[in-house]
Amino acid sequence: METMPEHTVRSYGEELRRLREMVARMGGLAERQVADATSALVRRDAELATEVMGRDSAIDTLEREIEAFCIRLLALRQPVGQDLRLIIAALKIIHSIERIGDYARNAAKRSVVLAQQPPLGSLNGFQRMAKLVQENLKGAMDALVNDDATRAGEVWNSDQSVDEVYNGIFREMLTFMMEDPRNITAATHLLFVAKNLERIGDHATNIAETVYYAVSGETLGEERPKADSSAFAVVRPPG
Amino acid sequence: METMPEHTVRSYGEELRRLREMVARMGGLAERQVADATSALVRRDAELATEVMGRDSAIDTLEREIEAFCIRLLALRQPVGQDLRLIIAALKIIHSIERIGDYARNAAKRSVVLAQQPPLGSLNGFQRMAKLVQENLKGAMDALVNDDATRAGEVWNSDQSVDEVYNGIFREMLTFMMEDPRNITAATHLLFVAKNLERIGDHATNIAETVYYAVSGETLGEERPKADSSAFAVVRPPG
Repeated sequence: METMPEHTVRSYGEELRRLREMVARMGGLAERQVADATSALVRRDAELATEVMGRDSAIDTLEREIEAFCIRLLALRQPVGQDLRLIIAALKIIHSIERIGDYARNAAKRSVVLAQQPPLGSLNGFQRMAKLVQENLKGAMDALVNDDATRAGEVWNSDQSVDEVYNGIFREMLTFMMEDPRNITAATHLLFVAKNLERIGDHATNIAETVYYAVSGETLGEERPKADSSAFAVVRPPG
Repeated sequence: METMPEHTVRSYGEELRRLREMVARMGGLAERQVADATSALVRRDAELATEVMGRDSAIDTLEREIEAFCIRLLALRQPVGQDLRLIIAALKIIHSIERIGDYARNAAKRSVVLAQQPPLGSLNGFQRMAKLVQENLKGAMDALVNDDATRAGEVWNSDQSVDEVYNGIFREMLTFMMEDPRNITAATHLLFVAKNLERIGDHATNIAETVYYAVSGETLGEERPKADSSAFAVVRPPG
């Protein structure tokens, strides 16, 4: 229904607009998956988690449709310059969105197990992280649809707070584990959920970077500010 | 030195061969990073780990070079059919290889911390996983260079054993944590290293799938056999 029937004659400009919209729609689906996976986690709602897992295939299908659309545009329109840049960017972006969908599905999967484990802390940090990465994903999609390099640059710069919340969760979970070995299973799954959200944030940033390039033709810096120090974290048992 | 000077006139066929070789070279770099990151982990060699971290930028540079080369090919040669498929595949593959490089760097980063923590178990599973994912990555690159769809299909099918070793490590690490809270920091970092290797295996499989499509024009099944059950794992404390 969403793929363009072969006989419809559209202008090239219309096709490129449609491409942006399809990508933004895919981004919207992924955003919802992140939101629902996090709700499922926080509300201990295994049913919603299972729903999220089931919905991931719609994102994968859309990825294949957009990829096929891009390949057709490349073959039939032989684009150069900015149009070519946009199509290449779209191919990169949909790959990142597909990964975001995978991470959301994985988080949902773990929420199913977590709903049966003793609750651990407030999970406020998870909601904060989810909100931040959703905003970034939405910002990147808006920048794409509106050809807005400034907005893309803003998103690219804002991932640092995601990393800070992640570092806090990392230490919190290790502390829970050390306090009581019965927390270990839940805390480990929560660590991986937090990691999923952190990766989603990374992908949102990468998407913003790609949008910036597609729109402006210029690249952002080599290395964005990165505040994830958890790989170096050491937490000592109490006493 | 490796980018083609503008004034060199090459045939189109030569350019496509060169593209495959550049991608395979990038894959080779990533393969070495995985091997060295794992050696650094097992031998508790913080110096080698630091070296691995420093070398990641060479992979990123090569990704940008290959992407620019692809865009030039698209703009100047206006490829269709199988050639277009190859170029699109190359763009996807280099993105996956770049992610593999990131995971290897992250594993190396954690090895630096781990070298200062009390040793935990034999780490045989990590070496086994690393060996398997390296073989898969190499197999996928060979399939690309030799236009070998059969080889690509074999790699796509073989990721299951990676997942099995990963599931074993997951349970082993949780058990270490439960036995002694002083193991928690090291076991957590090792869990993430194992996850990195598992993701690297996933990417190698995705690359094989992309190569299969590029070479044969046909897609492999929707869902490959996936044996990672760790997201559902529950381990209980002893006693």
